[in-house]
Amino acid sequence: MNANAMDTDTFYMRRALRIAARGSGWTSPNPMVGAVVVRDGRIVGEGYHRRVGEAHAEVNALRQAGDACRGATLYVTLEPCNHHGRTPPCTEAVLAAGVRRVVAGMLDPNPQVAGGGLDRLRAAGLQVVAGVLEEECRLLNQPFIKWVTQGVPHVTLKAAATLDGRIAARTGDARWVSNEKSRRHTHRLRHRLDAILVGVGTALADDPLLTARLPGTRCRQPLRIVLDSTLHLPESSQLVRTASQSPVWVVCAEDAPQEKQRRLEDQGVEVLRLARAEAGCDLSELLGELGRRSITSLLVEGGARVHGAFLDQGLADTLVLFLAPKILGDAEGVPVFQGGARWSMQDAAGLYGVKVRRMDSDLLITARFREGLY
Amino acid sequence: MNANAMDTDTFYMRRALRIAARGSGWTSPNPMVGAVVVRDGRIVGEGYHRRVGEAHAEVNALRQAGDACRGATLYVTLEPCNHHGRTPPCTEAVLAAGVRRVVAGMLDPNPQVAGGGLDRLRAAGLQVVAGVLEEECRLLNQPFIKWVTQGVPHVTLKAAATLDGRIAARTGDARWVSNEKSRRHTHRLRHRLDAILVGVGTALADDPLLTARLPGTRCRQPLRIVLDSTLHLPESSQLVRTASQSPVWVVCAEDAPQEKQRRLEDQGVEVLRLARAEAGCDLSELLGELGRRSITSLLVEGGARVHGAFLDQGLADTLVLFLAPKILGDAEGVPVFQGGARWSMQDAAGLYGVKVRRMDSDLLITARFREGLY
Repeated sequence: MNANAMDTDTFYMRRALRIAARGSGWTSPNPMVGAVVVRDGRIVGEGYHRRVGEAHAEVNALRQAGDACRGATLYVTLEPCNHHGRTPPCTEAVLAAGVRRVVAGMLDPNPQVAGGGLDRLRAAGLQVVAGVLEEECRLLNQPFIKWVTQGVPHVTLKAAATLDGRIAARTGDARWVSNEKSRRHTHRLRHRLDAILVGVGTALADDPLLTARLPGTRCRQPLRIVLDSTLHLPESSQLVRTASQSPVWVVCAEDAPQEKQRRLEDQGVEVLRLARAEAGCDLSELLGELGRRSITSLLVEGGARVHGAFLDQGLADTLVLFLAPKILGDAEGVPVFQGGARWSMQDAAGLYGVKVRRMDSDLLITARFREGLY
Repeated sequence: MNANAMDTDTFYMRRALRIAARGSGWTSPNPMVGAVVVRDGRIVGEGYHRRVGEAHAEVNALRQAGDACRGATLYVTLEPCNHHGRTPPCTEAVLAAGVRRVVAGMLDPNPQVAGGGLDRLRAAGLQVVAGVLEEECRLLNQPFIKWVTQGVPHVTLKAAATLDGRIAARTGDARWVSNEKSRRHTHRLRHRLDAILVGVGTALADDPLLTARLPGTRCRQPLRIVLDSTLHLPESSQLVRTASQSPVWVVCAEDAPQEKQRRLEDQGVEVLRLARAEAGCDLSELLGELGRRSITSLLVEGGARVHGAFLDQGLADTLVLFLAPKILGDAEGVPVFQGGARWSMQDAAGLYGVKVRRMDSDLLITARFREGLY
């Protein structure tokens, strides 16, 4: 392959990536996937996985290209599947369409089937290339990849703080730390991620709905979860009162009152009892249960102790931190993280791949708690 | 003036601004000034104020241009002076050189002489324009302008923190929050600003030299100041031991021990007694005294209580905050600011003109505590 061919593959893979992202929020527990069919230097078909249960990206792209698929190259951000799931195997569709060359961004992350789709195509005589813009393709689907390979959701810790790291005044007052644009972005995150979690302290202080609300846009509503080891969440809270419309889980410890559980369940809340851990519930057990229920991504919105617990237990994957252009200046203000004791600066958790974006006057910092990608 | 003439003036003023900055650190208590002489669309002379006591920018530029000044345009970031100071009035040099047009970035900020230089030139028949890139010209010399107009230094609060706003672990350990590039930048700030201040807690914990050290670069050494209301600074500290080579002030309250003062003075430290304020010394009085001694800019390097005091008293002009890509996660870690109680988020101090720069993996946030410029 010469340099020019390389550039062409990268170019169309970038296009496929851009299209893939259109499925954002709707594909879970499937990955976002984009596909582009190219013949004689022209795009003759494009498609993406629109929604879980609907057609895969390749099928949509091939369908759009129609007869133009014959002898064409198919670019797809993820290896085509070779098994019967909710839809027939994409490899069969690719072969039937007469495509001559397939370029995949990354292999299927499921180790049991990785490479199988491309092997099938190669065996049928197609030219196959894998790993074009692989890092970008992996980045697009970090939650899916983690869930498929480890069985637990990808965890994002989200907070809005002043530049000196305070999410609220000492009184708990937090209206508003971040600006409107940042708050709107939070709703976009809620739409994109499968579940959202807060501690009962936050639920009591703010009585939040935790729904995704974007004016003029249809949102997918995340599963709403409250960490509430002793079942303190009031039945009059917005969360409980809307549980019949959009699912709410309350996670409590083994020894939480049965009677309160029954009353919450009567209102449509699902109560999950987990082993008691130091100062709360066992978070690893929670993540395992979420994974079993096909939750691939979890947005943790605080408060400080909940963020601290995820940090302390090494369960956080990503940080999303809105920094408002202000200084609270009070050492008794509520901090972003309230974890265990750190005796030296070297005990701090490192962040990788830090990105900074302006949200009007706020800064949005995103970073990973792990150096490598899933 | 048509649009093109405007663009030309902006172009050369930008050049003058760039040259002016070369004097950074050496001109105080004078401003940084840059000048460019342009004839027939060509730069025929350039100059800047290199160092306090040496020639002004205009004189350097006119000298370089020589006979080419006749009929030329002089661009200068600050109105030429019209009075005898350490050097003769620049207006006379401009007139003697035969310049035809003078474009100034801003008027002299001293209200007693503002406009006088340009009036003199106008009266002599020269074309005069003022206010080209005025905001940039003001930004360049914020410390000078504040000092000239208010008699007190411009105050920069500098800190290095984790993304959750901690400058040290609960033990005080802070090695290292920020990376090498950030620490090098701190030395650049020390070179640029006239004085540097720390609380005695920081002096005791770190035993710092507080000198400007940049490998391969000659630095101006700032006046070093320790806030130490009860004179606890040990005579064996690096600061006291180097006081005879580079000035050190220790600022104490009226009731600090006389005997300790004498011992510090014996080692070359200057002890400044100020009125006692709540939990320390009267900072306004300190700034007044610094202003009287021609200190135009002060870099406050902490610790948390010192930063908090400057913040609480509204004495801070600028924030320089290095944010390291890590999360300490401990609510008992040392915060950036330890000021008084804030009962609501609305009590937070607002920041304006926020700039973000990458220092390798660290972020450097700079911002003003006031909306407008001096």
